[in-house]
Amino acid sequence: MKFKFRAILADLDGTINRGNRLIPGADHVYRKLSANGFQWVFISNNAMRKASEIAQKIRFLGLPIQDSQVVTSASALFHTLSKYHRGASIMAIAEESLIAGIQDSGCTITTDPFDTAIVVVARDSRLTYEKIENAFFAIQNGALFWATNTDPTFPVPGGFVPGAGCMVAAVAAPVGRPPDRVFGKPFSDIAEIVIDQLGVPRETCLVVGDRMDTDILFARNSGFKSALVLTGATSREDLSQYTYAPDFVLESIGDIEKILPPK
Amino acid sequence: MKFKFRAILADLDGTINRGNRLIPGADHVYRKLSANGFQWVFISNNAMRKASEIAQKIRFLGLPIQDSQVVTSASALFHTLSKYHRGASIMAIAEESLIAGIQDSGCTITTDPFDTAIVVVARDSRLTYEKIENAFFAIQNGALFWATNTDPTFPVPGGFVPGAGCMVAAVAAPVGRPPDRVFGKPFSDIAEIVIDQLGVPRETCLVVGDRMDTDILFARNSGFKSALVLTGATSREDLSQYTYAPDFVLESIGDIEKILPPK
Repeated sequence: MKFKFRAILADLDGTINRGNRLIPGADHVYRKLSANGFQWVFISNNAMRKASEIAQKIRFLGLPIQDSQVVTSASALFHTLSKYHRGASIMAIAEESLIAGIQDSGCTITTDPFDTAIVVVARDSRLTYEKIENAFFAIQNGALFWATNTDPTFPVPGGFVPGAGCMVAAVAAPVGRPPDRVFGKPFSDIAEIVIDQLGVPRETCLVVGDRMDTDILFARNSGFKSALVLTGATSREDLSQYTYAPDFVLESIGDIEKILPPK
Repeated sequence: MKFKFRAILADLDGTINRGNRLIPGADHVYRKLSANGFQWVFISNNAMRKASEIAQKIRFLGLPIQDSQVVTSASALFHTLSKYHRGASIMAIAEESLIAGIQDSGCTITTDPFDTAIVVVARDSRLTYEKIENAFFAIQNGALFWATNTDPTFPVPGGFVPGAGCMVAAVAAPVGRPPDRVFGKPFSDIAEIVIDQLGVPRETCLVVGDRMDTDILFARNSGFKSALVLTGATSREDLSQYTYAPDFVLESIGDIEKILPPK
């Protein structure tokens, strides 16, 4: 059975590349499908590198993508702030690069719990107790509670370090509720932004990724069909642990033509 | 129906006192029951004040209790370390007073993830990202993950600030599992220590407290009968929100004689 997909919403690490190497076949299918009119968007939860920096890395690995084809949890946040919340006072538990992006989106940074419209929580290597306390006070005082993503760990060369999910958990504990909005996968906020950008019907989009709990759950939460690739975090044996399943399972992104309409 | 209780395991704030005032009737029943051979133990999740300091405060309010009658999540931790883990290397996310108590229990403090037997997580007003990262690395490397308590907030004059539950949530997120051991209510670890100390059968102990999610759940988790008092966090209307119930509901600690055997 072939589906009428016209756009691929692909994860990056584990799907298109593994660290500093492209997954074999990624280059071939990207070029071929692009030439056949398919749109590609790359969705990353990484809130610490600019979308343009990530695009540059992927180009360096050999895939001729545009900056605008990369959407991160941070760029989705900036898009939303810029479009709907210009001038708002934002309290940020975040790295400097994210704080700069919030300011570039037309918002003001504050540390005053009584003058905060939105608390944005991301990974912050300069986290302090005082930041958690201020965020708690601001949200108690009526501020919205947003998170870039809830990834518990963040990949670095040689392993993993604590991710944004730690900071989100620390703030959510005293607040007593999860964030009001999360931009990263598996939450569906980012899907609306991508759909807006692509201008194509939802049912023509295929999410491709290597993680059940982010990529495949994101597709499910957003009403997209999904394909799991086995080149990253998930093995075929892992699948039985989940209460949901991808629509397709592929050995790698190179096999994606198998589920696309013939030329 | 009367029960054969001989020991009262009472919460403090909201049950015996409210801030700097004794609950009316507490003094009377404490003295009367003590004279009749009842044992009283006061169990507090507070891991930042010494049991002796807490006892002193209660004496100041008018209840003639001994230091040894107060058990906190910290004193339960110290008891366990001193009895079963002397000489162990402990990594602590905690205030100085707790760290000093760990050292007094015969253990060594370390910040080296590769030389940590147990990570102890408590409220820490000097929390940093690095502490979370080191705790994550140590637990990945095989260290045990212990928490004093998981209270999301901590009462201070005028309101609440983030409690140990924040730090525990921040460490649990990357680790991917809850603590191996929690000394505070509602977890049952502290119950064994109290039972040991009292030397009485479990079925003769009555837990009295004002919070469903700590005191009454603690009783349930530990196999004790429980009485909820309505002088603190819980109203009679709140009771329907819970899937478990106290064995008795009293207006205040002053009414406790109603469920005790007659002289």
